[in-house]
Amino acid sequence: MFSFRVLEKYRRGVPILWKRRITQAVAGKLDIGGVYPPIATPFTEKEDIDYEKLDENIDKYSKIPFKGLVVQGSNGEYPYLTAEERLEVVRRVRQVLPKSMLLMAGSGCESTRATVQMTERMAHNGADAVLVVTPCFYRGRMTSQALIHHYTKVADASPVPVVLYSVPANTGLELPVDAIIRLSQHPNIVGLKDSGGDITRIGLIIHKTKLEDFKVLAGSAGFLMPAYSVGAVGGVCALANVLGKEVCELERLCLLGHWEKARELQHRLIEPNTAVTRKYGVAGLKQAMEWFGFHGGATRSPLQPLSVTELEQLRTDFSSNSWL
Amino acid sequence: MFSFRVLEKYRRGVPILWKRRITQAVAGKLDIGGVYPPIATPFTEKEDIDYEKLDENIDKYSKIPFKGLVVQGSNGEYPYLTAEERLEVVRRVRQVLPKSMLLMAGSGCESTRATVQMTERMAHNGADAVLVVTPCFYRGRMTSQALIHHYTKVADASPVPVVLYSVPANTGLELPVDAIIRLSQHPNIVGLKDSGGDITRIGLIIHKTKLEDFKVLAGSAGFLMPAYSVGAVGGVCALANVLGKEVCELERLCLLGHWEKARELQHRLIEPNTAVTRKYGVAGLKQAMEWFGFHGGATRSPLQPLSVTELEQLRTDFSSNSWL
Amino acid sequence: MFSFRVLEKYRRGVPILWKRRITQAVAGKLDIGGVYPPIATPFTEKEDIDYEKLDENIDKYSKIPFKGLVVQGSNGEYPYLTAEERLEVVRRVRQVLPKSMLLMAGSGCESTRATVQMTERMAHNGADAVLVVTPCFYRGRMTSQALIHHYTKVADASPVPVVLYSVPANTGLELPVDAIIRLSQHPNIVGLKDSGGDITRIGLIIHKTKLEDFKVLAGSAGFLMPAYSVGAVGGVCALANVLGKEVCELERLCLLGHWEKARELQHRLIEPNTAVTRKYGVAGLKQAMEWFGFHGGATRSPLQPLSVTELEQLRTDFSSNSWL
Amino acid sequence: MFSFRVLEKYRRGVPILWKRRITQAVAGKLDIGGVYPPIATPFTEKEDIDYEKLDENIDKYSKIPFKGLVVQGSNGEYPYLTAEERLEVVRRVRQVLPKSMLLMAGSGCESTRATVQMTERMAHNGADAVLVVTPCFYRGRMTSQALIHHYTKVADASPVPVVLYSVPANTGLELPVDAIIRLSQHPNIVGLKDSGGDITRIGLIIHKTKLEDFKVLAGSAGFLMPAYSVGAVGGVCALANVLGKEVCELERLCLLGHWEKARELQHRLIEPNTAVTRKYGVAGLKQAMEWFGFHGGATRSPLQPLSVTELEQLRTDFSSNSWL
Repeated sequence: MFSFRVLEKYRRGVPILWKRRITQAVAGKLDIGGVYPPIATPFTEKEDIDYEKLDENIDKYSKIPFKGLVVQGSNGEYPYLTAEERLEVVRRVRQVLPKSMLLMAGSGCESTRATVQMTERMAHNGADAVLVVTPCFYRGRMTSQALIHHYTKVADASPVPVVLYSVPANTGLELPVDAIIRLSQHPNIVGLKDSGGDITRIGLIIHKTKLEDFKVLAGSAGFLMPAYSVGAVGGVCALANVLGKEVCELERLCLLGHWEKARELQHRLIEPNTAVTRKYGVAGLKQAMEWFGFHGGATRSPLQPLSVTELEQLRTDFSSNSWL
Repeated sequence: MFSFRVLEKYRRGVPILWKRRITQAVAGKLDIGGVYPPIATPFTEKEDIDYEKLDENIDKYSKIPFKGLVVQGSNGEYPYLTAEERLEVVRRVRQVLPKSMLLMAGSGCESTRATVQMTERMAHNGADAVLVVTPCFYRGRMTSQALIHHYTKVADASPVPVVLYSVPANTGLELPVDAIIRLSQHPNIVGLKDSGGDITRIGLIIHKTKLEDFKVLAGSAGFLMPAYSVGAVGGVCALANVLGKEVCELERLCLLGHWEKARELQHRLIEPNTAVTRKYGVAGLKQAMEWFGFHGGATRSPLQPLSVTELEQLRTDFSSNSWL
Repeated sequence: MFSFRVLEKYRRGVPILWKRRITQAVAGKLDIGGVYPPIATPFTEKEDIDYEKLDENIDKYSKIPFKGLVVQGSNGEYPYLTAEERLEVVRRVRQVLPKSMLLMAGSGCESTRATVQMTERMAHNGADAVLVVTPCFYRGRMTSQALIHHYTKVADASPVPVVLYSVPANTGLELPVDAIIRLSQHPNIVGLKDSGGDITRIGLIIHKTKLEDFKVLAGSAGFLMPAYSVGAVGGVCALANVLGKEVCELERLCLLGHWEKARELQHRLIEPNTAVTRKYGVAGLKQAMEWFGFHGGATRSPLQPLSVTELEQLRTDFSSNSWL
Repeated sequence: MFSFRVLEKYRRGVPILWKRRITQAVAGKLDIGGVYPPIATPFTEKEDIDYEKLDENIDKYSKIPFKGLVVQGSNGEYPYLTAEERLEVVRRVRQVLPKSMLLMAGSGCESTRATVQMTERMAHNGADAVLVVTPCFYRGRMTSQALIHHYTKVADASPVPVVLYSVPANTGLELPVDAIIRLSQHPNIVGLKDSGGDITRIGLIIHKTKLEDFKVLAGSAGFLMPAYSVGAVGGVCALANVLGKEVCELERLCLLGHWEKARELQHRLIEPNTAVTRKYGVAGLKQAMEWFGFHGGATRSPLQPLSVTELEQLRTDFSSNSWL
């Protein structure tokens, strides 16, 4: 599953700058394997984007062995940004981020035409790949057929590779397996970020797409190790905004087959991960970022800051696992 | 419950132009009682807005005893429109719609700041009231507190009255009763459109807000009569785009207390209503509009047209109740 | 909808003993129209059935203008009773209950054969009709076909009329409308108790079965009045164990068409009803019964008594509506 | 995680008879690690238990390196058996099953008192341990507190070790993590069968109970390998009724750390596993058993046999993974 060369990188300490070049040489399609933080968008107290703090975060992330960054995943509060803000964030991140790191930008909108347009613009602003969330408002009519139509139109038009994105906790919709299998055959669709956490489904998707050049990324650090065990190649993990080195260490242990050490580390990451995702969401993530030396900043309304009780519980979820 | 004067309108055949004037005279707040079609947005085959067909629809609706129209409710495909399109549709409808008819415009966006801005612009473009859907992407964090904060900010800033909008089938979120009770006290919040269809909840909301100048509209023709029975004052009904006169007749029978006739009519409307909402959604609604002399037009992608089987079933849902 | 004679009963104060005789004379099938408390099973502190207290409750209920009683609906803790206990409770209730009042006994089990056997035995022990809940453990396979098969077998074998029972809050399963329509044609199936509270569905069921001798009972006092408005003929209401006269008064107002008074009463019953059902369940119901002069007694484990906070809230739900 | 001695068993081909003796020597509590088929109950065409066919199945299962059998898990149609049948099945299986194999019997009932009684009787009839499903009918009131109370009473009274059982697909209820942590401290509670398949939750449970003598079994072959990866010690897998040797081979590969081979095997088991569980349930399982040389027999009503279409699809789910 894991090529000699990738393992070698970790064994010999190959400089991180090489990573992308190596993996691109291996396959025709872009290799998306690795860990990505889906970065938060720091806001000022007045809820404007704080680009300076964003730059500082990117600078720090550049020193962690991430494969790249995801801009405007669910944790980026992208539904709260204007189209102009979405594009400007991509442009700024690309300027600060080293060329060796992949910039995957969330370009999903509700309509197909808006998604196509956003995809083209984000690629123009420097995105190396786009992450396209399932449209969901009319979820009762988002059949496999409708979703295949949507993603095909987007992938046909996109100047950069497309990664599918299924995040039922936010969309109330899971991209169906049959649609994924079909879409995996598209030459410009390179993989899937699956945030649902159904490991049986993830295993099945990997099994049914193994003849294609199609990879699966875990959408959360909570199940990163079991996802590797069934054949995922990395993860887009909110927790990597906070404990980035540790999530990359978990990746390394999995790639090297050090399963017992991986298990111990995985266990200690579950509660902090749940705290910054399902339990307290973006406000929890941003608070934890502050504790670990990153800029979280305010959330944009209607998202509210944590209550005192929630803050205490968030702290406990990190401290009881010896991270604080 | 129903004032003498409203009943009089129906008894004596008061011209529709009087309707709004009368009801506004009764209360300090805007009276929203009555039936509204949440209009569809007709698209051309290329998925552009077909403003001429829209105008023709409005013209026809103007001859039906509606209280007014809702522009950009869920059936208007508003999540598929750009901000500019949303505003232009409001402007066009206001031009064509008689002054006597109320124009309620859906101004909800995910962020509070975007909703405030859209609300102000729609009011400027002629909306008499705004209908504000619950933000929902981060539904796990859309607590009563967050939603109260959101709606208060919007209502404080809005130049026109605000109607709350709870539509769990699309948002995966029900506006909590405690939040509604609290918001009902805001001087610029005049009511609620509830599309969930939980009649116990609707009765409770009416009971708990009866000291406020706050009214409830049923969000569907499927439970319009039982909603009247527990104290609702009207409905925003997708089916009114197709069978507008019939839905208004159901209103009339309820207001006059002709419950047995109302029941018979209500019964015959349930299947057609479900067909153009939960079962076949906007594509079903637009198809049925074509059968009844209105312009439905295409849907915008990713929404797809009905399959042949679905089309047949849609027809049956109307014909088996003697509407086709 | 409501026959002259039924209305006459209320107008002239016809003795309750006549009620059943009258209604049976009208139709071939048993007339199930009216209000029923689904009685609780009082337990001693040691969790044994307290038959004396049960007798005293029945004696009190006999003086309220109920159509009859339901024994071993969900509120009877029937899943916690042995087969022998279930039968003995039916036998005892029949001994104490006046002949003029209908005894409807819950005979549902998971398997068809057990349900057939329990049905026969309950009829032998004096049940006038049986209420058969949907089997639910294998809910993923409880298709319309499986449920039609189940109910047909039971109705074929039953010596007394069968009432279908859909209670999704407990079973996680709604008896599908198409199965109900089909089963309504069975000569020994006389109606449905629907506890789901989806008023659109209730209206549709009544509409689609109107050519059959098939009646619908609301499964809760929370939506009794809107259920009457769309054509239901009564209700099996947990709250009737506590506020029996008041629920019967609501029935009377609906039957006489006094909708405004009915609405006021309906409104005041919603919160107490929710408190003794969805919010606090059987423990809440039993506590409220004690306050209003009936014997609730203990629940059987694993059901637990209310916490102090819950008890306070339960009291508020009654007192804020002026019942305590 | 996996002791030298357990690995040795597989390396040297230690006879299966030793297995239980070895593992019991290691720990004070019963070691439940290993693979178990939750056996089906074969019925005759008249839906009576076919004890002869049951005996023959047990005989065949005795030759597969299972840790033991589970009698009356969800696949045993236990909700369709009478109390007497449940006990008799346990007695018969114990007679046929070699002493070296563990007999875990499902003794859960809705009430605590019935569960205590069934537990005692099953132990008396030869069960080595009991598997106790969450009571669920009043799921809205099955709080952590109520469930802790229930399981504590059962474990206090049980003559044999107790295994907790969480199966939300059937019960609509997940045993909460906080209740599991608390119950893991009970001296007579040895583990959990988790059929929900949420691998993050499984990892967390293992992490939070690691100081206790408490083990977790995967409740399905669909996620057996990832469950091992996060620290589970075995599985109770419906599919083991059909492909028992293959599921044991997956166990062996996981225990030996042959993750790549394990992954390939795991992948091929997902579709057949889903087919005999979520998709087609017990009827699918029984049909597949027939294909692979075991006696499935009829299901008991209301469970229905597969349709022709379902049968074809079931076959495809096996054949497309090269099992048929």
